Amino acid sequence: MLPGPPSKIAVALFSGFQALDVFGPLDALNILSYTNPLELYLLSTTLDPVSTILANAPTPSAIGQSLVPTHTYQDAPKDIEVLIVPGGRGTRELELTQPVVDFIEASFPSLRFLLTVCTGSALAARSGVLDGKNATSNKLAFDWVTAQGPDVKWVRHARWVQDGNILTSSGVSAGIDMIYAFISDQYGEEAASKVATMSEYTRNTDSTNDPFDKAA
Amino acid sequence: MLPGPPSKIAVALFSGFQALDVFGPLDALNILSYTNPLELYLLSTTLDPVSTILANAPTPSAIGQSLVPTHTYQDAPKDIEVLIVPGGRGTRELELTQPVVDFIEASFPSLRFLLTVCTGSALAARSGVLDGKNATSNKLAFDWVTAQGPDVKWVRHARWVQDGNILTSSGVSAGIDMIYAFISDQYGEEAASKVATMSEYTRNTDSTNDPFDKAA
Repeated sequence: MLPGPPSKIAVALFSGFQALDVFGPLDALNILSYTNPLELYLLSTTLDPVSTILANAPTPSAIGQSLVPTHTYQDAPKDIEVLIVPGGRGTRELELTQPVVDFIEASFPSLRFLLTVCTGSALAARSGVLDGKNATSNKLAFDWVTAQGPDVKWVRHARWVQDGNILTSSGVSAGIDMIYAFISDQYGEEAASKVATMSEYTRNTDSTNDPFDKAA
Repeated sequence: MLPGPPSKIAVALFSGFQALDVFGPLDALNILSYTNPLELYLLSTTLDPVSTILANAPTPSAIGQSLVPTHTYQDAPKDIEVLIVPGGRGTRELELTQPVVDFIEASFPSLRFLLTVCTGSALAARSGVLDGKNATSNKLAFDWVTAQGPDVKWVRHARWVQDGNILTSSGVSAGIDMIYAFISDQYGEEAASKVATMSEYTRNTDSTNDPFDKAA
């Protein structure tokens, strides 16, 4: 018997994550959870709140928000089915994000799906799990991201890319279109359409419709 | 001399707020803050983390996320220029949200702008500040919201509505289009366009383009 749609979802947080990379996909899942049983784990290196402002920035010039994690990478549940990796300024900090990279590498073999948003694909690339796979990323950061994974088949013109059980999206807002594609595929198009209507979101349902390819 | 664009922004949080109502607008402001000096206050009744899951729900059937507030309504800074009020399931809880309603009423006279997202306009309506004004709200909750403010001039067909210094948006995702209209108006179209490109967001720039009017 085929397994049902996944229900155990985790998000890999780190200092300096991009808020909409996380909350775009998660709020669609929040609404989906009214009708489909889902469990959510928010992972970080400690249980302290994680800020969208990079912790070691010399003078934080930006506003930010702090999200409360539910588990550390050390004590993360073993039954995670879907791992979502956001992007953000923090991804440029190689030491800071090494625990995320290590966690992607260690957990990937038991995951049913890995989803990345924006420069989150740089973290997945560093873990090696994207090697030989098609993947995309944020357009303004494309050169930097692709340098993190020379053996990845980077696809520039894409709103999101699916290669097997790995979905990578383009920049920030593209994560919303990717999650709707994922919901449609795994929970059914009716569920995806219902969540989009409840969220009053106009979906971009064509993964090759990428208005930002020429932005950089 | 005319004042410059507003820089002191607050968000009114409560148990059971909708995540994207908050993070759609805030992440655009996060990116704007890289180049424009902004300050952000996240308000709640206490300094405990505030969950998108309604606290007194009999059996929470939904997944959620918890955001860390920076101030209580009691000790909120007096210099707030822009107050953003999200919607969500919590808005239906009249007792729970009375502190939000009271805060809107008390702070409105000194605000430069009041912005609401989704059913957040029900809280503004209860405070009385929308009386005689044009306003909109979530389409699936429209009948309930409009009953909260019989003296408001409710506009059904609108992605968002501006009446003087009050902007109200339609459901959830509509808050993103509203904040880009606000950024364009107050910080300039070049800033709005730049933030949208960095977020890879395709704006709906026509407030009368409302694809969800027929959803209910």
